[in-house]
Parts: sequence; structure tokens; C-alpha cells
Amino acid sequence: MPTRGLYVGRFQPFHLGHLEAIKGILEEVEELVVVIGSAQYSHTKGNPYTAGERLVMIRNALEEAKVDFGRVWVVPVPDVHLHMMWVSAVEGYTPKFQIVYTNEPLTKRLFMEAGYKIKNIPFFERQFYSSTLVREKMLLDESWKTLVPKSVADFVAEIDGVSRLRDLNRTDKA
Amino acid sequence: MPTRGLYVGRFQPFHLGHLEAIKGILEEVEELVVVIGSAQYSHTKGNPYTAGERLVMIRNALEEAKVDFGRVWVVPVPDVHLHMMWVSAVEGYTPKFQIVYTNEPLTKRLFMEAGYKIKNIPFFERQFYSSTLVREKMLLDESWKTLVPKSVADFVAEIDGVSRLRDLNRTDKA
Amino acid sequence: MPTRGLYVGRFQPFHLGHLEAIKGILEEVEELVVVIGSAQYSHTKGNPYTAGERLVMIRNALEEAKVDFGRVWVVPVPDVHLHMMWVSAVEGYTPKFQIVYTNEPLTKRLFMEAGYKIKNIPFFERQFYSSTLVREKMLLDESWKTLVPKSVADFVAEIDGVSRLRDLNRTDKA
Amino acid sequence: MPTRGLYVGRFQPFHLGHLEAIKGILEEVEELVVVIGSAQYSHTKGNPYTAGERLVMIRNALEEAKVDFGRVWVVPVPDVHLHMMWVSAVEGYTPKFQIVYTNEPLTKRLFMEAGYKIKNIPFFERQFYSSTLVREKMLLDESWKTLVPKSVADFVAEIDGVSRLRDLNRTDKA
Amino acid sequence: MPTRGLYVGRFQPFHLGHLEAIKGILEEVEELVVVIGSAQYSHTKGNPYTAGERLVMIRNALEEAKVDFGRVWVVPVPDVHLHMMWVSAVEGYTPKFQIVYTNEPLTKRLFMEAGYKIKNIPFFERQFYSSTLVREKMLLDESWKTLVPKSVADFVAEIDGVSRLRDLNRTDKA
Amino acid sequence: MPTRGLYVGRFQPFHLGHLEAIKGILEEVEELVVVIGSAQYSHTKGNPYTAGERLVMIRNALEEAKVDFGRVWVVPVPDVHLHMMWVSAVEGYTPKFQIVYTNEPLTKRLFMEAGYKIKNIPFFERQFYSSTLVREKMLLDESWKTLVPKSVADFVAEIDGVSRLRDLNRTDKA
Repeated sequence: MPTRGLYVGRFQPFHLGHLEAIKGILEEVEELVVVIGSAQYSHTKGNPYTAGERLVMIRNALEEAKVDFGRVWVVPVPDVHLHMMWVSAVEGYTPKFQIVYTNEPLTKRLFMEAGYKIKNIPFFERQFYSSTLVREKMLLDESWKTLVPKSVADFVAEIDGVSRLRDLNRTDKA
Repeated sequence: MPTRGLYVGRFQPFHLGHLEAIKGILEEVEELVVVIGSAQYSHTKGNPYTAGERLVMIRNALEEAKVDFGRVWVVPVPDVHLHMMWVSAVEGYTPKFQIVYTNEPLTKRLFMEAGYKIKNIPFFERQFYSSTLVREKMLLDESWKTLVPKSVADFVAEIDGVSRLRDLNRTDKA
Repeated sequence: MPTRGLYVGRFQPFHLGHLEAIKGILEEVEELVVVIGSAQYSHTKGNPYTAGERLVMIRNALEEAKVDFGRVWVVPVPDVHLHMMWVSAVEGYTPKFQIVYTNEPLTKRLFMEAGYKIKNIPFFERQFYSSTLVREKMLLDESWKTLVPKSVADFVAEIDGVSRLRDLNRTDKA
Repeated sequence: MPTRGLYVGRFQPFHLGHLEAIKGILEEVEELVVVIGSAQYSHTKGNPYTAGERLVMIRNALEEAKVDFGRVWVVPVPDVHLHMMWVSAVEGYTPKFQIVYTNEPLTKRLFMEAGYKIKNIPFFERQFYSSTLVREKMLLDESWKTLVPKSVADFVAEIDGVSRLRDLNRTDKA
Repeated sequence: MPTRGLYVGRFQPFHLGHLEAIKGILEEVEELVVVIGSAQYSHTKGNPYTAGERLVMIRNALEEAKVDFGRVWVVPVPDVHLHMMWVSAVEGYTPKFQIVYTNEPLTKRLFMEAGYKIKNIPFFERQFYSSTLVREKMLLDESWKTLVPKSVADFVAEIDGVSRLRDLNRTDKA
Repeated sequence: MPTRGLYVGRFQPFHLGHLEAIKGILEEVEELVVVIGSAQYSHTKGNPYTAGERLVMIRNALEEAKVDFGRVWVVPVPDVHLHMMWVSAVEGYTPKFQIVYTNEPLTKRLFMEAGYKIKNIPFFERQFYSSTLVREKMLLDESWKTLVPKSVADFVAEIDGVSRLRDLNRTDKA
């Protein structure tokens, strides 16, 4: 079995920081399992895009960046809302992995308590790239396309993804 | 099949703005499906009344206003929390409809993406009538009865609905 | 508050036995709450029709039979699968009721343990009318229309309900 | 059947105020059912410890305080999120009880509407003891051990419970 | 931490075989965690009794048999229906344990894959004692009381548990 | 957007008939979305393997057969158990598709009612290849490896998948 890393994100939307993370991790492991977290959610302010749309963003971005798709598994995993079960949900949806790459304290803690090796994400620059920032710029009509791969910007245009986000932002529903 | 409109609300409680909306929509369509949204919730600050209690409020108010009950369907629909499935949940619980009446951006967006015709609610005066305002006035012991049909005020009294709201407001539970 | 009876069925589909039951109960109580049970299910062999379709069947049948719709509440209630919670789910979705009409041992037992008065369904002739029998006849292309109100037979035709049942019957999915 | 009281808490963590409450109630009833609420949650800022860990805290604390364990039932009950069903969930998970001890407005309201006798918790001093306060002190590295039974402080140390809370506090996940 | 065994059962109802198992395991470990499985179910043919009723049966039987209650934890755990998460659900609801006692192939397999030590249940005589057999004899009005502890037979009488089972047996609901 | 087909299976395990189906469909469409249905289930007689294990089987088989992985999307989708929502769940988890390939009557009916174009699976030989048959042969220790791609047989050996199935087969749990 190849050495596999795990990398969990929500990718709302997928941005250049995510891409750098994937490329960085692939220098350290043979294969990488990218989990699309909160897969069942979409059409909310914080989760505007469906799992299927995020799958397309990721694949398009990896192709654009000429990342070897044969070394990457992209797997949507629905949230279970019970932290004590989330690690086993991830294990059930994915190929076996040995190393969890994360800078997120909760993810770190849960996989650590389950006995996994944890590593920080290489080349991680949260101050420059974050999905929250991209969504904010989309809402304010500021330039956001420089923060994402070109293929992602194209796909967001194709699905009219900025208008959708603006509608979602105007709701007062929970 | 008659032309049917759809109108979704939580009706916590049902107020005169809701009644005007229903009367206005019934001038444009043959039948109206009124969906009691978030049907499974009750006994929270924002959702104090059960679906059953809201059913009674709506029927009493329609009777009081002499709206032809034969042209109206009132259907409680539980939330599914996955926006990508909510439209099909509504479709499953209701008679077939063609036009969705809503001023709510998320509802508009979801039914629009599902291919429905969307129209604004006629005679909609959110600044005067809102369930949030009614609940606030109930809590502050201000005059709220002028905002709802008389039969709704009577029913709230019958179920001791203001005391319940006050108890719910004092909890620190999520 | 008027005296209210409760009558729970799945109505897959609504047949003449259901109609007789409703008419019989309405001779004993002022109002009747008809619960469409298992509301969330459809498109299975045993539950072919959606809650919305069953709502239409019931209303059409009551209109055809000239039953006073103002004395009847028709309310879809999703199953909760935990019997210890089902009674309170029904209570939450419906106007208050005092008497439960049922011949079904589980329903009888659960509402009895919750303290309700239980009565048998008047004019109940299970040997002649049952939804299972109607569905079997639909599958075998035997005459089933005499078992249901005319308006129900018309509605089943309108939604192509027999073909749907046949497709569902041929699946080997659970 | 003995007279039984019910006492619901989340016990995140169990503190001296909880212990005083249990001792006080046991002076009034023969047996006490202690419900560990929100049992399915753990590893969040507000619910750091699992139901199993909270079971251990309570038993250890009762042993340390020489409370007769034979008069106490400790039962984890998962939240159902539908207030209209919560009382029946509690009833299903516990031995029959007659009196509900609570100072919490929502719990009071729900059990009152279900017909239970409600009493205030004796010796309840929320200003001195609260789980929220204990967790805040843990995060700020202030002295918190005086607020909990010694055996609870020991158990928190054994499971490295303060580090876990700090990790959970640093996440930005919902 | 003491050596703890885990023993999972549904206890519908608790019988002498269960009691022998508990006594046998307590000869091998310091403490035993007894999990009441399928805790959320009741009022079905195969699961007639609530988790709370089963808690009472077990405690009464242990007292009657003079088993040291201080060495036993009895914990209701709801089913999660996803086998890949069930082990972590059990872990979340219980004190830490090291050895799983089971003769049941699925339980064995799941805890084995999760890395636990598995042992067979000592003194296990399924041919003589089984809950299925007890329920069958209850239904047939055959002598079943010799198969359960006296205190369990008394408690079943107190809750009218045989009548309940007979009602449940006559339903045709799923 | 490329023309995309959808193909839903449970792949318990993936066999040569599945592979032929995928190759056949890829002759008709530009891209194919392979949905791993019932993704949340594993460790049952009928669903022995996790979604993650099935992902590995499919990828390995496609590589072995030199199918262009860039034209295939493999997406695990959890069941929702409400047929009226299942189509929208699939839509939410997948890239947009236009044609549904299926021979299964329920899948056909549901996607047809949702307005999709339906086609039969090319080269489909259910009499020769079926997962049920493979599992039966595994249990009976008959030759099953000729029914699956070599890489799948290897992977089943790697995860000790036949022993697991045998354990699952011996349980009497639901």
C-alpha cells in the first residue's frame, strides 16, 4: 500500500492556497486523499457550492496545474455532527491513509486522539488565501479571481456562482 | 389541474401580513399551497409554537377572514437542513404547484434553480408586520394583538402562548 | 375547544373503507384529525404515493362525498421510527385531540400508554377494503377502481400511478 | 415503586454545584435519576467531554462524597433537537420518575406541559458554580480545581482534558 | 485505570444467561461496562421494552444476585446504523475498556478491526437462555419466569410487559 | 460542458459486468459519473465493503483496464431513504449530467419523473455477473475471482475481505 496523506477542506471555493497545499503534500507522500468536508451542505452563505460543484473545481484546478490526478483521491464526506464519530466516518469513506495534514486545531485533536500521525500543511499561507476572503470579495465585487485558479474562476462564472452567493447573503434564514 | 401557487412561511405566529399575502395571491391563482416551514420545531425563542398550533392559527384566521378554505392547502413540512434537497421535500409533501410566491432570497434562489416561476408576494409590508416583531412585543408586554387576526390572538391566549414564549426567552439553552 | 378524534392511516391509496371510517367517526365527534402517516415515504412498493399526492386523494374524495371539509384536518406526519417518540410527534403536528380511533394494535397500545381514550373505527370492514388489496389488484391488472372513490381513481390515472407501482414492484432495491 | 426525582445536566464538567444539587435532592426523594444531557456531543468548546467521560466523573464524585450509589441512576440521553419529542425521549431512556428538579426555564416548561411536578433545585448557587465558569478558568489557566470534586480534577488530568479544551477553543469550526 | 471488559446486549428482556455472563466476566476483569444496545427502540416485537425499563431490569437483577454494583457500568447506547461508526459511538458513550466479550460475529469483527482484544463470553449457554425464547414463551403463555431472575419477572408484571408484547405481536406495522 | 452519463451501483464488490458497463457507456458519452450508492453502509451481509474500499476497487479496476481515468468521476453518495429526495441528493453530490444509464426499475422511474433522459446499460449481462453471485461464491468457497478484475481480487485479499463477509454472514443482527 502506498503512503497516503489526508487533507480535509470545505473548498468553498477552492483557491490557490488549497492548490499549494496539495502540491506541497504530494512532495512528501505517494498519494493524497482530499476530503471535501461538509459535503451535504450547499446554498448557504458559508457553504454556497454543492459537493458536485466543488468536485469539478478541484479536478479542473488539478488539471490546470498539471498535478498527476492518478496520485490524488477526491472524496466528498458528509458531516456527522458528532465529533466522536467523525474520524470513523472519514475512515469509512476513504482509502486507508497514515498521515493527516492539517493546521486546524479540532481536526488535529480528533485524529491525534484516534492515533494518527499529524503534520502541518506545507506552504500554508492563511493570511493570503482563504475561502472566507474569496467569498467576501465576491460579495463586495472586489477582485477575487487572482485568489483562485483560472479554471475555478471560469467554473464559478459558468454556474453563476457569484449571483448565487449574493442571494444567499441576503437571506435571514439560519 | 388548477393553477397553484406556493407560499412558504413559519408563521410564528401567523399575522395580518400573512393573511394579506394569502388573500393577494388568491387573486392571482386558483389554489394556494401554504407550507408551514420548520414544522418539526417548537418551544424555542424563534419557533415557539408547534406545527399543530400553527395549523389552528391559520385555519381560524382564514375562517375569520372568510377566505374560501376549499382553495387553500395548508401543509406542514419539516426542514431537511440540506438545501439541495429542500425543494424536493416540499414537492413531496404538497400538491403540484407552478408558481412560487416569495420575497425571501434563499427560497427564491432554490426554487429558481429548480426551474419554477417566481413572483413577489403581493401587498407585502414587512416593515409593519413580522413575526419577529410580534414576538418582541409579546416579550415586552407591548400591544401585539393589533398585528394578528383576532382569532389568532384568542388562540394564543387559549394555549397560554405568551407565557410559553417568556419561559423560552429566559433559557440559555441553544 | 371542539371534541376531536384522531385517525391515522397511510392511505396508499385512499379507498372506500377509509372514507366510511371518516364518515363514521364524524358522527361521533365534532372534528376529525386525519394523519397521513409515513409521510416522508413514496416510490416504494408499499408506499407508492407521496404525501402531497395522498393529500389530493383525500381532499378530492371528501369533496366527492360531500363531507364537510371544515370539520376535518388532514395532516401529513413523518415517521420517527422510535415508538417512544411517535405519540409526541403526532401531538406536535396536530391540533389537540381527545379520542384516538384505531383498530391497529400498536397504535392502540402507544396512545393508550400515553393516556388517550381509544375507540374502534366504526364501519370498519378490512376484509373488503384494504390498500394492500388495491395495490395487488393494480399490479395484477384486476379491477381495483370499485374499491376507491371515483375521484381517487381519476387522480391515480392523472399521475400515471399504476405504471409507477408496476415499476416499483420490479425493483429489487430494499 | 420508589419516589424518584429527575435532574438533567450536561456536566461539562461535573462541579461542586452539581454535587450539592444531587445531595440536596436525595434528601427529598428516595431515588434520583441523573440525566447526562446532550450525550452524543463531545469535542466542542461547550461540550468538551464525551458521555462516557462524564459518566466516570459523576461516579467518581459520588463515591468520593460517599453518596449511596444504589439510590442514583446516571443515564446518558442524546438530544433529539425537537423539543416536542424531548420529554418522551427522556422518559424512554430512564426509570419512571415523578418530580423534575430544574431551574432551567425550557426544561421546566417542557416537563410542566407534559404534566410533571416541577421543583427548584435545592442549594443551587449558580453564581458560584457553573460549568461555563470552570471551562473559562481552564482556558485562562486560572484556578478551577476548587470548583470541582477532587476526583473530577484528577480524572480531567488523567484524560488531559484541559489541553483538549484549549485545542477545541482554537478552532473556528462551527 | 482498572481493567475493564465490555459486554453488549439488547436485554429484551434480561435473562439468567445474561446474569451468568456478567458474573463470569467479573471473575476475569476488575470492572464491566454493560451496554444496552438499540437503546432508542421499544414497543416492537423484537424490542418490546424501553432502555429505561431495561436499566431497571438489570439493576434489580444485579441487586438480587448480590453482584457488586460498584464494579458494573450500565450504559444505554443508541444504534447508529452505520457499522463503520458504531464502535466509536460505543467508545463515546462508555468509560474506556480494553477487552470486548462477545460471541456475536458482527460485534467481534467490528471491535477486532478497531484493534480491541476479543474474548468469548464465559458460561454462555445460548441453547438454554435467549431473549427470543423468553419472548416466544411469553406470547404462547408458556412458563418463561424460570428463564429470568425473579426480580425481572416481577418488574415485567409491574409494567404489564406481557400484554404489551402481545399487542405488539398483533400489529402488521413494520 | 461535456456530455455526461450517470451510472449508479453499490459495487459490493465491483465485478467484470460493472467494468463492461463503464466501458460501454464511455463509447456513448464524453464523461461518466459513477455513483457509489449506499455509501454509508458497510459490514453487512449485503454491503460488506466501505465506500473507501469500493473507491479503491473501482480505481484499481479502471487502471488495470486502461480506462482513461480523466473521463470518469467516481463519487460516493449516501442513501437518503426518502425516494422523493434521492435524485436531488445525487444531483448535489455530482457534476451535472444529462443521461442516466440504468436497468433498475426504481432508478429509472425516479430519474424519469425528474425529467432525465434514461438509457439501458450497454453490454449488460446480469445473468453472468452480479455482486450477489460473487458474494455467494465467496461464502461457499467457490471460484469467484473469475467474475472480478484481477486487481479487485487482489484488493479483497489485501483487506481479508472474504473472512469479513463470512463473519458478517454468521451474525443474526439485522
